[in-house]
Amino acid sequence: MSEDQEILKQVDAQIADVVADASLPPSLVEALRYAVLGPGKRIRPLLSWHACVAVGGAGTDSLAAGAAVEMVHAFSLVHDDLPALDNDDMRRGRPTLHRHAGEAMAVLAGDALLTLSFDALRRTCVEPEQMLRIIDELTRATSGMIAGQVYDSLGGLPEGLEPEARVVLIHSNKTGALIRASCVMGAMAARGTASASCEPALLAAVTKYGEAVGLMFQIVDDLLDVTQTSDRAGKRTGKDANAGKLTYPGILGIDGSRRRVEELLELALDAITPLGSLSAGLDRWARTLAARER
Amino acid sequence: MSEDQEILKQVDAQIADVVADASLPPSLVEALRYAVLGPGKRIRPLLSWHACVAVGGAGTDSLAAGAAVEMVHAFSLVHDDLPALDNDDMRRGRPTLHRHAGEAMAVLAGDALLTLSFDALRRTCVEPEQMLRIIDELTRATSGMIAGQVYDSLGGLPEGLEPEARVVLIHSNKTGALIRASCVMGAMAARGTASASCEPALLAAVTKYGEAVGLMFQIVDDLLDVTQTSDRAGKRTGKDANAGKLTYPGILGIDGSRRRVEELLELALDAITPLGSLSAGLDRWARTLAARER
Repeated sequence: MSEDQEILKQVDAQIADVVADASLPPSLVEALRYAVLGPGKRIRPLLSWHACVAVGGAGTDSLAAGAAVEMVHAFSLVHDDLPALDNDDMRRGRPTLHRHAGEAMAVLAGDALLTLSFDALRRTCVEPEQMLRIIDELTRATSGMIAGQVYDSLGGLPEGLEPEARVVLIHSNKTGALIRASCVMGAMAARGTASASCEPALLAAVTKYGEAVGLMFQIVDDLLDVTQTSDRAGKRTGKDANAGKLTYPGILGIDGSRRRVEELLELALDAITPLGSLSAGLDRWARTLAARER
Repeated sequence: MSEDQEILKQVDAQIADVVADASLPPSLVEALRYAVLGPGKRIRPLLSWHACVAVGGAGTDSLAAGAAVEMVHAFSLVHDDLPALDNDDMRRGRPTLHRHAGEAMAVLAGDALLTLSFDALRRTCVEPEQMLRIIDELTRATSGMIAGQVYDSLGGLPEGLEPEARVVLIHSNKTGALIRASCVMGAMAARGTASASCEPALLAAVTKYGEAVGLMFQIVDDLLDVTQTSDRAGKRTGKDANAGKLTYPGILGIDGSRRRVEELLELALDAITPLGSLSAGLDRWARTLAARER
């Protein structure tokens, strides 16, 4: 995956530029860099890149969108880890930001990451109309993510839903919305006549792919939470079941969850078939994400 | 001020629409409404409205921008009140959001208000290029506000600054940036040939006004903190001095601070003189804000 390593360098450079350009106190800059430029797989910006390529864009067109989604993702982790929420001490094998820099700084750094994600987006080189669509996509994904976290941590799901519908509602918001947006925003950032802004069918294909992969990703995460040791995961595992949270394995069992992963993988791959060889990166990533748990 | 009461109704209706349209869990909606639609002076959207009128726009052009700045203001209050930050129990005569709905909900509701402020902005009816300038203004003001809060709560000011320069740096970021942006965004939202997008001199006048009023506002706040009782302020007073925070009265004394308020008032009024009678609303509000403390 040396191509992906090269992409990651460019994403990180973009994020570092956004943080450096914002005239912030050095302690806040350090906290932001700790939260967003530390170890991490950068799955979302990689999906943005490959979605951009899949609709005929240059991967570099997607860098600003990729930086933005990674910053929103990092913001959500920082706030979700806070003592008042999931109260996690470890993340990616290191102390969480509030353990590293204090709780006040973690609150403010999360706020700054969310704010600066919009600043990152503005570096996308598309027509203003298209930029507004991209901003809209990020806004909706972020508010969906927050809604998902409310359902997951504080309850309040609509009455009368079947267990699987409940967990889909949580997951599709909490994790799915931003993964879907990573794909859609990457496609929207593609310039040129073959771009998704000119071809609704291309955008529809990427959207369908993003939705399937987003849900699949969270099911795999749930499976990892019950099957993996904390040591390997770099964070506390088993916590969801212990916290009595709704999870896929809790509802469908481990085998049932794995079958659902396979179904969603197939759905994602089918969705991008019409895009042909340009979608090789998306194809590979769907398979990689499905196989994380094995 | 019945004109202002009418404006406030429209601002609140706009905010209520943004919150209602976001497909959020009912408990989160309730928390957002508690934080942003409760008692409050809505000074920022009123400044947006009057700035819009001052450059030749219709006040209603400013409603989306006004809703956005009020939501960002509310977000900052909710997070600043958290136990990890200012640890305030009362705000505007009621329990703060984390006392009312729990700390987890307060973190998430603040995040949602910040996110939805960009959603509110998108309802502005201007050309996409102009919209992007407005988004940029909000982003910079918000990151400035967070920077100011870091300096104020966690320190880290640049070395070698004189005391007054230190307090100006904190205040101009923490409070000034959003008040300035309220004025500038209101002016930018004005449509038509006489609008600020067409007339840089109009925008420059409003910007200068916003900067002076923003700093003045915080000095008056500092004065209120030392001269008013908690009962009248609806929140804990005397807390800044008790917390050892840098304040204007702490540096210039009460009389010196009052003189600075008068100077800034004059600066603000001078800035908008070229706008003529259209700036009557801005003129009145500068005087009102300067007189809050008396």
